[in-house]
Amino acid sequence: MRRAKPAVHQRRTVARSRLFEVEEMHLEFSNGVRTRFERLVGSSGGAVAIAAMPDPDTVLLIREYAAGTDRYELGLPKGRIEPGEDMLAAANREIMEEIGYGARRLAHLGGFSLAPAYMAHTTHLVLAEDLYEERIPGDEPEEIEVVPWSIHDLGSLVAREDCSEARSIAGLFIVREHLLQRRR
Amino acid sequence: MRRAKPAVHQRRTVARSRLFEVEEMHLEFSNGVRTRFERLVGSSGGAVAIAAMPDPDTVLLIREYAAGTDRYELGLPKGRIEPGEDMLAAANREIMEEIGYGARRLAHLGGFSLAPAYMAHTTHLVLAEDLYEERIPGDEPEEIEVVPWSIHDLGSLVAREDCSEARSIAGLFIVREHLLQRRR
Repeated sequence: MRRAKPAVHQRRTVARSRLFEVEEMHLEFSNGVRTRFERLVGSSGGAVAIAAMPDPDTVLLIREYAAGTDRYELGLPKGRIEPGEDMLAAANREIMEEIGYGARRLAHLGGFSLAPAYMAHTTHLVLAEDLYEERIPGDEPEEIEVVPWSIHDLGSLVAREDCSEARSIAGLFIVREHLLQRRR
Repeated sequence: MRRAKPAVHQRRTVARSRLFEVEEMHLEFSNGVRTRFERLVGSSGGAVAIAAMPDPDTVLLIREYAAGTDRYELGLPKGRIEPGEDMLAAANREIMEEIGYGARRLAHLGGFSLAPAYMAHTTHLVLAEDLYEERIPGDEPEEIEVVPWSIHDLGSLVAREDCSEARSIAGLFIVREHLLQRRR
């Protein structure tokens, strides 16, 4: 089934803070139904989440404080793509800042939406291999804990309460699939 | 490494719309660094994402318009848990509304955060089995397309551009892991 997308009759900003902007859209669906939606306008460049692998079995996770859930969360290193920055360059910069490694091999494995019903945000998944030590200063308020994890043991990872982020979980399973395919 | 959580010195609402509320927090980390964070305050009850399986190999996906990404997205049925509503009851109501089935067996397989750095939102993953036909009216602006998909073929699903949502992807891989474990 291929349907025409709803027509957007009006868009306006209804709330704004330092980091967030909320946009209201008046939509008309192809069946004539009209409705209002609100959505968050994301940073245009999107973000990267990086699976950095020092060897073919291990991925480097980080554990850092997350203000949204108000607890320490275990997951993939992530960060914003800066204006004008290349996606793979952003991934390499983020792992230098957050885990102290750069990568000689970087591959884009796809993109995620978070909550497509009300967020435009995209996060690109990048696999980083052939690592070398290099640390550059980031803007983190405290030192980030790095936790090596076996890519073959995702079951016990997702059972942990502090590994909850859908992007990290989806990203790790996709990396595992990718590695299995590559070995075939 | 177990660190004390940052102390929250101040919290205030800095922006609000019909659906969204942005809160600013003044934090002090255990190393003395002080910083401001902004986060979205979620609906307190959270949401459910449901993997409804008419047989042990098939999961029922839906394809519906998403205003955030302004395109049709393929993924798990999802919805808000209403105030006072039980999580599994919410899951059963959502699949009756969105795919026209109820379930005799419902199991909670865990919870996801979306962007824990700046969202408090939680989505609970529910596996729904032993389905029976039952449709109740929902609040969707147009009829929802139901797309049966093989749980064994997640590789080609995540390669599709219209299946981008991290919660759906993470949820499907977790369901597949769960089913593999159960068969052992």
